[in-house]
Amino acid sequence: MRRMVSLQNEKVKSWKKLQMRKWREKEGMYLLEGPHLLQEALFTAYDRLTAIIMDEGFHLPPDWPIEDIEVYQVTHKIFTELSQTETPQGVIGICRMIPPALSIRKGHYLLVDGVQDPGNLGTLIRTADAFGLDAVFLGEGCVDGYNAKTLRSAQGSHFHLPVIHRDLFAVTAEMKKSGIPLYGSSLQGKDMTGIAADGPYFGLVVGNEGNGASPELLAEMDKEVKIPMAGRAESMNVAVAAGILLYWLQTEGLAHGA
Amino acid sequence: MRRMVSLQNEKVKSWKKLQMRKWREKEGMYLLEGPHLLQEALFTAYDRLTAIIMDEGFHLPPDWPIEDIEVYQVTHKIFTELSQTETPQGVIGICRMIPPALSIRKGHYLLVDGVQDPGNLGTLIRTADAFGLDAVFLGEGCVDGYNAKTLRSAQGSHFHLPVIHRDLFAVTAEMKKSGIPLYGSSLQGKDMTGIAADGPYFGLVVGNEGNGASPELLAEMDKEVKIPMAGRAESMNVAVAAGILLYWLQTEGLAHGA
Repeated sequence: MRRMVSLQNEKVKSWKKLQMRKWREKEGMYLLEGPHLLQEALFTAYDRLTAIIMDEGFHLPPDWPIEDIEVYQVTHKIFTELSQTETPQGVIGICRMIPPALSIRKGHYLLVDGVQDPGNLGTLIRTADAFGLDAVFLGEGCVDGYNAKTLRSAQGSHFHLPVIHRDLFAVTAEMKKSGIPLYGSSLQGKDMTGIAADGPYFGLVVGNEGNGASPELLAEMDKEVKIPMAGRAESMNVAVAAGILLYWLQTEGLAHGA
Repeated sequence: MRRMVSLQNEKVKSWKKLQMRKWREKEGMYLLEGPHLLQEALFTAYDRLTAIIMDEGFHLPPDWPIEDIEVYQVTHKIFTELSQTETPQGVIGICRMIPPALSIRKGHYLLVDGVQDPGNLGTLIRTADAFGLDAVFLGEGCVDGYNAKTLRSAQGSHFHLPVIHRDLFAVTAEMKKSGIPLYGSSLQGKDMTGIAADGPYFGLVVGNEGNGASPELLAEMDKEVKIPMAGRAESMNVAVAAGILLYWLQTEGLAHGA
């Protein structure tokens, strides 16, 4: 274990820069904060964690497998600089992103177009994980999938499935080539309860909180679907809508024997 | 229109106190912030709004029906004191809560037990509205339904259905008397896809983000149900789970001809 006492230390400065999206993308690394997320990373995606940074007074749980991980203790002042939560819990990890070279095969995918709220995005990733999807793709206008708030609300799902920033038109083109049916969530779509899914596999597109997915992307879909709403709310939260549509697709998929 | 310039003004002090839950409950009033929420209140629940407070430079939309509402312009300093958002939008309303004397009849209800995050609670209320439920009941351990963040994420649904703080054991007892079947969301419940709903009406209980609904409350349920999860996430966000369960109950309800 090494001890750091200066904010001017080069390592400390490079960690701090990971608070910026641009830097995270350049380095392919991000900050992972709090014991619960670190524990999930350590036990399910060990090779992603490259370093652990502890505040003064934080005690490493004795069962954490940290033999090959660099551990640093920093002053409370440095820790506070690095922390991005209101109530820091004394430990931050430095994590590798998964390289985005995933080849698309027949499977189950969520495509996220222009979602702006990091909490919503994290909940979408957590929901995709709960349904056992194969990957989540984030389009160009989307908030960063490795933002501290996104990571927090995803509750460790980043370690269970790939979360990849990629042009969604390229993704949908690949899916079409693989014969994966594409569904777009849209208030102008057809009531989903009235239609059948095209087989067990799917790519589901959900969009921006205010405007939904872009018309250009929706034009690429095989089906535009809408959740029937009996009440007076104009729309649903994007993560709630995705959950309902994934449940529907999963139930339909089971009917197809996937 | 009246103009207020002093933070010591009694009216300003009484508005400021509405930032506290205790005071809101005592007065039966709350603060509603931002033009979108005010517009929804004005056009769908006109009698709930008693006053409008504007920052310097805010222009009242000419189509707002405010004949019988007191309008105050305040200094930017006062407005900043009253505002509870990071990016204030220049206008705050003073709203009446609905009196909680709702008698339970056969219908569709959401019961929220111990949810802590105001954003989650607001999303739950918005989802209940989207499904056209008759009311949302909030149990004793629940965050305040009239918290600024709850109101914001509910996006005006408070004006479409009653949002009532009440002892959930009293509510479930009344529902049982009315013959309304009770469903509890629980990770220990039965896979919902395998079971039938007991008729078109329901009370659905969802619980705390970490621990779910209390065992005592779940013991009152007719059925404990669980969303099938194929993936590795241990659980879903409470609002996403509620959305999926309400969709299921609605589809089941339609099958029953409700």
